[in-house]
Amino acid sequence: MFSLLQSTVLGRRGQLHTAHGVIETPFFMPVGTAGAMKGITHEDLLTLGAQILLCNTYHLHLHPGEDTVAKAGGLHPFIHWEKPILTDSGGFQVFSLAKLRSIDDTGVTFRSHVDGSEHRLTPASAIEIQNKLGSDIILCLDQCPPSTAKRSEILEATDRTLKWAAECKEAHESLKKQHKRNPLLFCVIQGGLERDLREKCAQEMINIGFDGYAIGGLAVGESAEEMYGVLDVVCPLLPKDKLRYLMGVGVIEQLKKCVAKGIDMFDCVLPMRIARHGTILLSSGKSLDIDKAVFRGDFAPIDPDSPSPLSRKHSRAYLHHLVKVKERYGETIACMQNLGVTLRAMETLRETMDNE
Amino acid sequence: MFSLLQSTVLGRRGQLHTAHGVIETPFFMPVGTAGAMKGITHEDLLTLGAQILLCNTYHLHLHPGEDTVAKAGGLHPFIHWEKPILTDSGGFQVFSLAKLRSIDDTGVTFRSHVDGSEHRLTPASAIEIQNKLGSDIILCLDQCPPSTAKRSEILEATDRTLKWAAECKEAHESLKKQHKRNPLLFCVIQGGLERDLREKCAQEMINIGFDGYAIGGLAVGESAEEMYGVLDVVCPLLPKDKLRYLMGVGVIEQLKKCVAKGIDMFDCVLPMRIARHGTILLSSGKSLDIDKAVFRGDFAPIDPDSPSPLSRKHSRAYLHHLVKVKERYGETIACMQNLGVTLRAMETLRETMDNE
Repeated sequence: MFSLLQSTVLGRRGQLHTAHGVIETPFFMPVGTAGAMKGITHEDLLTLGAQILLCNTYHLHLHPGEDTVAKAGGLHPFIHWEKPILTDSGGFQVFSLAKLRSIDDTGVTFRSHVDGSEHRLTPASAIEIQNKLGSDIILCLDQCPPSTAKRSEILEATDRTLKWAAECKEAHESLKKQHKRNPLLFCVIQGGLERDLREKCAQEMINIGFDGYAIGGLAVGESAEEMYGVLDVVCPLLPKDKLRYLMGVGVIEQLKKCVAKGIDMFDCVLPMRIARHGTILLSSGKSLDIDKAVFRGDFAPIDPDSPSPLSRKHSRAYLHHLVKVKERYGETIACMQNLGVTLRAMETLRETMDNE
Repeated sequence: MFSLLQSTVLGRRGQLHTAHGVIETPFFMPVGTAGAMKGITHEDLLTLGAQILLCNTYHLHLHPGEDTVAKAGGLHPFIHWEKPILTDSGGFQVFSLAKLRSIDDTGVTFRSHVDGSEHRLTPASAIEIQNKLGSDIILCLDQCPPSTAKRSEILEATDRTLKWAAECKEAHESLKKQHKRNPLLFCVIQGGLERDLREKCAQEMINIGFDGYAIGGLAVGESAEEMYGVLDVVCPLLPKDKLRYLMGVGVIEQLKKCVAKGIDMFDCVLPMRIARHGTILLSSGKSLDIDKAVFRGDFAPIDPDSPSPLSRKHSRAYLHHLVKVKERYGETIACMQNLGVTLRAMETLRETMDNE
């Protein structure tokens, strides 16, 4: 259940109530692909202010499998994470990571990128898997066309996404009756950069009715302006009392702009990925390429105002050294820094809204 | 300064006073090669009861270089570790890791295993480097012959090690006069499995006089019985009021036996290395091969009595999963478990001695 507390020029401020607690919105979700964050312990995630963890259904389906997770009582006890969990549908990884075998209106058959084993994902099975995983927010199976797709392909993917969303809703309602659990169901709006397809998709999704509306198929290579353009089309159509989730965006400046356009939630691996490649985001908004020689003798703290305790105590020279010699602790320091700065940017935004 | 508190059938119980605090002996040292432990943060090292960190002079000399570390004020501020630090001489890595160029009685020339750059290490430079690193316990340069070496080679290495030890002592005394710092200097006793060479080396080292006596060239492929045999030769010769350090031993059962033979301190990468390969040491003394299929559905805690909080809360099934999908958090859990169990074994041994 989402409560919109206020709408300002900065964006929407609200609270999302889940079975595992309240999430203050707007928020950013760390991505714990297979049930863990690369380089960051669960404890440290909480220290940095993570309110929720995103886990990837595709990875968890391949290993350990949803049945094993269900036997543990769901993802929360399995990974020992007590705050909310969102799972994606698995569709994005099927289309980007797996070896695709066939796709038709009833689902998609693919081979695992790990061991080549064949699997099939359908709208109903995507919902069933996520139910077995026990996540708090589950996503409808969608088809995300590549950024290079022609209009005809985008049209086909959008129509299929709509058809699948209706089937997901049906499967979801049926499972809700069977089980006591009541996870939130989000659809994914597709349509590429085609304004009319985005409008049509949004409108038809609203007609089906969901707990939240994700906007997919963005941050896949288009310009930031093109991305904002899609939000300007879609957001005004969406019901005010439901969450809006922009998938795959994690650049802080963009997060702020997208919140101002009405987005409530985000996920992205970007802060972690650039951390592992030595780009350190600072509280000030600037960033450092920590592997540059200039940092060899820079004994100042990495970021004295950092939300990460490691960056307040360790020096730039030490991090430079660890990155240069490929010591894992360097990755931990860098990942905690970038995630911490990203999470705090959202926290600061919420506080600014509260004080308006 | 070492204070021997008591000698029992279990071993020697004492306290080592260093510039960065007191270490309760006997103790085990985690190996933080280049100034960090693989997979474990400094904070977690302290949680697990680490009293001291071993850093490798060879790695730190190659990067960031002792001059950079000295500019930071030494290793303690550079890596932000407030407890004692021991550095080895660099010799072991020069002979095992680097590409050797030449060795003679004045030192050894080698090429970096990282970038092939040429370096030279002499008895005096090994001491000077470790002084610049600012470590609390520094080691004399020694020559560790391979386990397959003939007696003539072992004899040559032992004589050279003795000559170098005298030069190291001289360099050390000279540096002590120059600086206010007063690190402890340990020699390394070599001699392979040759009883008379071990005796001779120990005796001559005692004549030179050191703050502690390391026994090197063991745990390099000989049987445990052969190793114990060397301790039975060497330990009775060593002065009771000085530390005895057995290098490279980390099997808990062996640690206990070696303490009973008079050893006070150990270091080893083994607990971490086997952790990264999925062998989990338990508090009970047993171990688990966590990647075996039987753990897929084992939702019991990894080790309910573990010194590591991660192993008390996370299940074997979760760790099995993380190891199988190569998630880094699995390595962190496994490394903390094995190091924690090893450190606690020594702590328990100390407590047992105290209660005798």
